[in-house]
Amino acid sequence: MLVSELAERADVPVATVKYYLREGLLPPGDVTGPRRAEYDEAHVRRLRILRALREVGGAPVSALQVIVDAVEDDSRPMHDVLCQVSDALSPPLPVDGPAQAAAPQVNAVIAGVGWTGARKDAAARLRLAELVQLVSEELLTVDTEVLAYYAHLADELCRTELALIDTTKDRQGTLEDMVVGEAVFGEILTLLRRLGHEHYQEQRRREG
Amino acid sequence: MLVSELAERADVPVATVKYYLREGLLPPGDVTGPRRAEYDEAHVRRLRILRALREVGGAPVSALQVIVDAVEDDSRPMHDVLCQVSDALSPPLPVDGPAQAAAPQVNAVIAGVGWTGARKDAAARLRLAELVQLVSEELLTVDTEVLAYYAHLADELCRTELALIDTTKDRQGTLEDMVVGEAVFGEILTLLRRLGHEHYQEQRRREG
Repeated sequence: MLVSELAERADVPVATVKYYLREGLLPPGDVTGPRRAEYDEAHVRRLRILRALREVGGAPVSALQVIVDAVEDDSRPMHDVLCQVSDALSPPLPVDGPAQAAAPQVNAVIAGVGWTGARKDAAARLRLAELVQLVSEELLTVDTEVLAYYAHLADELCRTELALIDTTKDRQGTLEDMVVGEAVFGEILTLLRRLGHEHYQEQRRREG
Repeated sequence: MLVSELAERADVPVATVKYYLREGLLPPGDVTGPRRAEYDEAHVRRLRILRALREVGGAPVSALQVIVDAVEDDSRPMHDVLCQVSDALSPPLPVDGPAQAAAPQVNAVIAGVGWTGARKDAAARLRLAELVQLVSEELLTVDTEVLAYYAHLADELCRTELALIDTTKDRQGTLEDMVVGEAVFGEILTLLRRLGHEHYQEQRRREG
């Protein structure tokens, strides 16, 4: 198919497709003439993945590049790729004062839930400590017990999600499912939580 | 304090403070001379809230405006304000094909968990249907049972979070806590889930 049809199939503007091609986020098509190239189903799928990561997961273009490179490199162990994707999606938060003041609290909570397989220098771990420090300065109190509750809930969620992974797919397919699933089901949970809050606030209002 | 100190206290660039002042996101200070105004602790707090919503919650400036206006209007019932904030944080997703094809599935799951207090036209409900439709087109299957599992988990989470609200604060303080808490604890859960995935993937790798 031509670029116009590719854009239509993936429901993305032609200008976006051209931008992704320039940036190497989308592999080039088969050149069939001057200013003419043919694209296939793999391009449609890649575009849909990029769209989900960007629109749903809020991933910046810099993260998309890292994710695409990591997923495409067949020589890299799957776990390495997933770690790199996780890091690309967890940019550092600028914090005031001594960096990592909340790190011991965060590390204790992660150890408490038994996640020995989460890297000490995982970007998500650092961002979590930065986040707790940022809001604890004056905005909100983040108690260790509250943090532990969230970790417990996340643990239950991760166990369930692990069991849902379709292991019959090939490496590329499994990786894509895991990367897209992280973004999509994360946003599904965010939206459901928001609706749940609305319900319980309304219930509280009615009860006076 | 002067604008430079205000910026430093909230750990935000002076240019950002001036931008928020121009946009009305931050109330003007007490004018004490030409090109000179005094700011107080309320300004520091507002800036910290805006920073948390933007950097942590990823809220666009248009949403910040809605949130600030809604929270500041004392005449509006608290539940109305929270609904408006929720809508501002749940922009629609552009979807291909017949809009709302996934709405019945989403509505059934929300009804199943008993959230009668969540508006039929809540932006989060519409975005959820759009999201399910967008990925179901070809990217990922979102089974109703899987969706129901997330709703069940969100329900447990919302009940716990409701119990954690500090009800001794005034209207403004409670609203601020709820709005900031929605963004901050949502991001905390996202980061913990990412770390949990890393742990379980590493565990699976080790087990071969």
